[in-house]
Amino acid sequence: MPHPIVFDTQPGMTKPIRIAVLGASGYTGADLVRLALTHPNIEIAALSANSKAGLTMAEIWPHFAPYPGLPRLITSEAVDYASIDAVFGCLPHAASASLLSTLAGPKIIDLSADFRLKDSATYADWYGGAHPAPALLPGAIYGLTEYARDSLPGAALVACPGCYPTAVLLALLPLMAANAIGPDRITINAISGVSGSGRSLKEANLFPEIAEAVAPYAVGRHRHMPEMEQELSAAANQPVILSFTPHLVPMNRGELVTCIVETTRPVADLRAILQARYAAEPFVHLLPEGTPPATRMVRGSNHAVLNVFADRVPGRAIVIAAIDNLVKGSSGQAIQNFNLMFGLPETTGLQAAPLFP
Amino acid sequence: MPHPIVFDTQPGMTKPIRIAVLGASGYTGADLVRLALTHPNIEIAALSANSKAGLTMAEIWPHFAPYPGLPRLITSEAVDYASIDAVFGCLPHAASASLLSTLAGPKIIDLSADFRLKDSATYADWYGGAHPAPALLPGAIYGLTEYARDSLPGAALVACPGCYPTAVLLALLPLMAANAIGPDRITINAISGVSGSGRSLKEANLFPEIAEAVAPYAVGRHRHMPEMEQELSAAANQPVILSFTPHLVPMNRGELVTCIVETTRPVADLRAILQARYAAEPFVHLLPEGTPPATRMVRGSNHAVLNVFADRVPGRAIVIAAIDNLVKGSSGQAIQNFNLMFGLPETTGLQAAPLFP
Amino acid sequence: MPHPIVFDTQPGMTKPIRIAVLGASGYTGADLVRLALTHPNIEIAALSANSKAGLTMAEIWPHFAPYPGLPRLITSEAVDYASIDAVFGCLPHAASASLLSTLAGPKIIDLSADFRLKDSATYADWYGGAHPAPALLPGAIYGLTEYARDSLPGAALVACPGCYPTAVLLALLPLMAANAIGPDRITINAISGVSGSGRSLKEANLFPEIAEAVAPYAVGRHRHMPEMEQELSAAANQPVILSFTPHLVPMNRGELVTCIVETTRPVADLRAILQARYAAEPFVHLLPEGTPPATRMVRGSNHAVLNVFADRVPGRAIVIAAIDNLVKGSSGQAIQNFNLMFGLPETTGLQAAPLFP
Amino acid sequence: MPHPIVFDTQPGMTKPIRIAVLGASGYTGADLVRLALTHPNIEIAALSANSKAGLTMAEIWPHFAPYPGLPRLITSEAVDYASIDAVFGCLPHAASASLLSTLAGPKIIDLSADFRLKDSATYADWYGGAHPAPALLPGAIYGLTEYARDSLPGAALVACPGCYPTAVLLALLPLMAANAIGPDRITINAISGVSGSGRSLKEANLFPEIAEAVAPYAVGRHRHMPEMEQELSAAANQPVILSFTPHLVPMNRGELVTCIVETTRPVADLRAILQARYAAEPFVHLLPEGTPPATRMVRGSNHAVLNVFADRVPGRAIVIAAIDNLVKGSSGQAIQNFNLMFGLPETTGLQAAPLFP
Repeated sequence: MPHPIVFDTQPGMTKPIRIAVLGASGYTGADLVRLALTHPNIEIAALSANSKAGLTMAEIWPHFAPYPGLPRLITSEAVDYASIDAVFGCLPHAASASLLSTLAGPKIIDLSADFRLKDSATYADWYGGAHPAPALLPGAIYGLTEYARDSLPGAALVACPGCYPTAVLLALLPLMAANAIGPDRITINAISGVSGSGRSLKEANLFPEIAEAVAPYAVGRHRHMPEMEQELSAAANQPVILSFTPHLVPMNRGELVTCIVETTRPVADLRAILQARYAAEPFVHLLPEGTPPATRMVRGSNHAVLNVFADRVPGRAIVIAAIDNLVKGSSGQAIQNFNLMFGLPETTGLQAAPLFP
Repeated sequence: MPHPIVFDTQPGMTKPIRIAVLGASGYTGADLVRLALTHPNIEIAALSANSKAGLTMAEIWPHFAPYPGLPRLITSEAVDYASIDAVFGCLPHAASASLLSTLAGPKIIDLSADFRLKDSATYADWYGGAHPAPALLPGAIYGLTEYARDSLPGAALVACPGCYPTAVLLALLPLMAANAIGPDRITINAISGVSGSGRSLKEANLFPEIAEAVAPYAVGRHRHMPEMEQELSAAANQPVILSFTPHLVPMNRGELVTCIVETTRPVADLRAILQARYAAEPFVHLLPEGTPPATRMVRGSNHAVLNVFADRVPGRAIVIAAIDNLVKGSSGQAIQNFNLMFGLPETTGLQAAPLFP
Repeated sequence: MPHPIVFDTQPGMTKPIRIAVLGASGYTGADLVRLALTHPNIEIAALSANSKAGLTMAEIWPHFAPYPGLPRLITSEAVDYASIDAVFGCLPHAASASLLSTLAGPKIIDLSADFRLKDSATYADWYGGAHPAPALLPGAIYGLTEYARDSLPGAALVACPGCYPTAVLLALLPLMAANAIGPDRITINAISGVSGSGRSLKEANLFPEIAEAVAPYAVGRHRHMPEMEQELSAAANQPVILSFTPHLVPMNRGELVTCIVETTRPVADLRAILQARYAAEPFVHLLPEGTPPATRMVRGSNHAVLNVFADRVPGRAIVIAAIDNLVKGSSGQAIQNFNLMFGLPETTGLQAAPLFP
Repeated sequence: MPHPIVFDTQPGMTKPIRIAVLGASGYTGADLVRLALTHPNIEIAALSANSKAGLTMAEIWPHFAPYPGLPRLITSEAVDYASIDAVFGCLPHAASASLLSTLAGPKIIDLSADFRLKDSATYADWYGGAHPAPALLPGAIYGLTEYARDSLPGAALVACPGCYPTAVLLALLPLMAANAIGPDRITINAISGVSGSGRSLKEANLFPEIAEAVAPYAVGRHRHMPEMEQELSAAANQPVILSFTPHLVPMNRGELVTCIVETTRPVADLRAILQARYAAEPFVHLLPEGTPPATRMVRGSNHAVLNVFADRVPGRAIVIAAIDNLVKGSSGQAIQNFNLMFGLPETTGLQAAPLFP
């Protein structure tokens, strides 16, 4: 008989919120379970992974070896949704909307790309097929928490942003909304850890292919571009088209975006705008002048760090942001949204400081 | 003005325990601060680092960039010990005992090697000089928590075990105490992440010297040997001398020990002994039969995982344990001891699940 | 039209030796091609990989992007063996013997496990099936070059040792042959880079599963054990049974074995034996007293480094060896054997110094 | 008595070229020695490192353990320059020019920044002090080999380009010279392995600070910028000012530059220009359409790989190049220049294929 999870008892908590995590066999789903394990208001009621149904979490995830009490994996069809308060969707795009659109009852926090784009034609262009549930798009909240707070308490369906858009939008939205940067010629170079590629079995993801190497991918055609453009265009009140080049480097977690933007304002003004916007934010931090953001500042945490620098080319500035792609870029932000949807303090369950070294 | 640490307010906690961390500029001290930041009963009252006095934690530690409210570093002499309830000593050996022996008042949890060995002559042999405060040795508790619980509530001075001894003793003590393994010819091979070498500026610690490489060190003469022998001898009721070879590999955290032991008992018996001893432990876990322990099972957490295997050589068995060297092997175990010294639930502040990937 | 390989022209070489590499889609096969590319006497005449037939090497191997002139991959059945002087077999076990046993004409250097064990019953026990060509076993040369030199010039079939046996045997054979170490209780702990696992698509080989982690595998049952025992038993003139525990760590290349042996001789005697044996060897090096071998000393090269240390347990010693698992542990040794089989200087094509950092 | 280096005998070579490597205790100097060891026309006559004078190379460099016959380190003042044919300068800037300007006789290949900039005022601005030997600047050849071939045979002083400029200029010079890209708004993001930081003892270079992390550095003020601008301005026949942001990632070797440029030409035209320029080059390779360059394609070799892509922003293109920063970006190019200075085939000693994995 496995021994019990000693950490999930929360004396004094009258009624926990019962969650299901769909797609718990991927890195995103697993990181959500990791965070949920110590969330004081969550009961992990169901875990699904169709290809691994019947296995325990410990059997497919080494780091859950100390937690034999976690629910066994079942298919997403086998979940008793009537008993679930919140569903976290960690499924691939298209599959996610197909399933989630059939649910009634639980609130939905979706981590796939399916409900991020408002325009189903744009979705079809970039994701290679008609949207499975276009009727849900208008009501879905784009869950970049710091910009969605007012809409989250009553929300039934929240689409968590992609990891790259989270970092880029935190960096650029306040500047764009203040007309402090131009809508043209935004150039973003991004560097990500390999967990962003998922746990898929392809040669490019094997250790020896990644270690001691760096490689760009999806050059000129990464699917996170329309999402960034949608939100920046809204802030700019005009169409924004941007350049975005992501690179994979040999690390597990972490994401850094380096954004070159056009501006007529001195860097001090840009700093002041970011400082004013984020001074009261628990998870977004403008660094001291001259300190470059680095992923080691945020590893394993829900924090984002930002800074802005003068560019050598006159009329431009460099805005840099770093996050943990699996936390603020994915599961952590999902929990942050969940907290607000259920009336909990926003930082509940997300207090862990970054892990360094 | 830096914004406040939003996580350290604990509504309802009547009187926090004020701690000082001496040696907060090393990896061990920093990891203690990381854990203390979210411990609900701790107030971080003072942080010392003589060589960095005057700097902020964020200036010397990238991952504390989001925590500008941490106390500024001061010298250990400048700490107002009268206002401190507990001191965590993360100083180098010898310096640690010299300073801590002068303190009266606060309870002391020492993470150095200074109070681990009962015999000051052995200390002098291995650490290259007379013990600075031999009078304190008899009263110091050897804080391998799972074996020191009865002594911790009233303790004034606790010596936290070294990282390697923690892993080895968790693996072997129950077997030795049960006379299930022999005291002779114990052979231990250990593999550690680089954080175990500390933040010292030497060529061997530079990234390019470590990456893509593995190297043994201190072959036949590692200072953790007398500590393991002391505790195993006590369990065996006879002198134990062992072989121990540590290796550094390119990872930050994690430690794995592979122990080949002599035994006349079948592996199933050894499993049963370990299972009985650890079934109720929150942080020590015997894995299912056949599953090898791995450091990715415990990274960033206070957990230890164990297993035992048949050796090909008849009359021997292989016992393997994995921990995070900075947590269960150092700062986490220190907090675990602190909790029991102050009458708190043992797992307080240590609930974070392992970080994977 | 792809531009030509400018490096493969060898002015003055009257008649190159035409080779085929079977299994060129694995790491071992690829490393053989890498070495063959600059070998002055080799013409790469055919490359096979049944699952990738039709593709170019550059399409499946990023580092051959600068070599578009390499032969396109074909099936092993499509190779024109009549025109081939030497076949390098880099196929999986069983498949290797099945194919190679049908060839007549070319000399064969096999890198699989199929021709290493002299006893077909032992093979069946460890490799899970009857040997496909037991009649070839007696004539196969076990190609640990430094110990097979006399047999190589006339050999038709050479079995290259496994990577672990190469390191272990270089370390222990001279000591065992001199009766300087005992045949009992040999304990070997081994640490290997991930390329040793091959390019196979399984979760355990993905970057995030390996990075920042260490894990033992095949505890008590690794298939290289009978091979080491066969050779050590021959040197000891009595049966040797040993303990061997391999571990994977986050690096691409490199292998280190730490051998604890019983001895009645002082370490200085063991050093003298190793020094005498290897003083004239171009690829095997006894390090200065006290210097531990490390994989960074040999990365990318055909070198092996050794040393011996006193153990804390009386009557024992610690012998350590490091190699690059893909070079001296596999493809480099294969070339070394090839050179001697064809009457070339032993170091031809293997002169590259180690790559560090 | 150490055994001899068996690889440095070159039967038939009548008179080797005697070289001295100044600054052999840095990664650049060590990589030069690595390449020189197997260069058929080079005799390593002297190695200097003032801070390590008296030590052997094997004592300070693990990978030279198999080469005990290398000359012992001496001070740069102790070198007998009258017996030296070529000096490779691997010293820090300013120190390099101070020393090299006093030498007469040997040809000089300098790997420092001292002779790269034609304008001594620019040097003073970026390198923080007056140039030590401005009279030598007009005669120094900027040794980007593919663009300096005509000047190298008679050259007495060659300044090897910085690693970043090597990659950037190989990517952009042909396009700029053809007026196919604009001189304005060039945006370069660069990613480098850590060996580029040198073997200096600072916290930021320790393994745990680098592993599992990415960080930009020298944002807006990296010293390689004026060098790139000098060469691009010459090609453009007008001043070029560019944006350049370098990032460090956890790998030893490798460098990748992602250049966003303005263009009115289709990508196919840009490809055609690059193809025409590099078709006959032994070390510079335009990849097939759509294949992104990656550092694993060139690790440990003197190769560079390039490609060009359409940008999503109209009127722009993305040109990407990858090199090994220590080889083509430093020591390999130095050897390539040396070969031409001494009338040897350009690829001599540089034939090693990339090391992967």
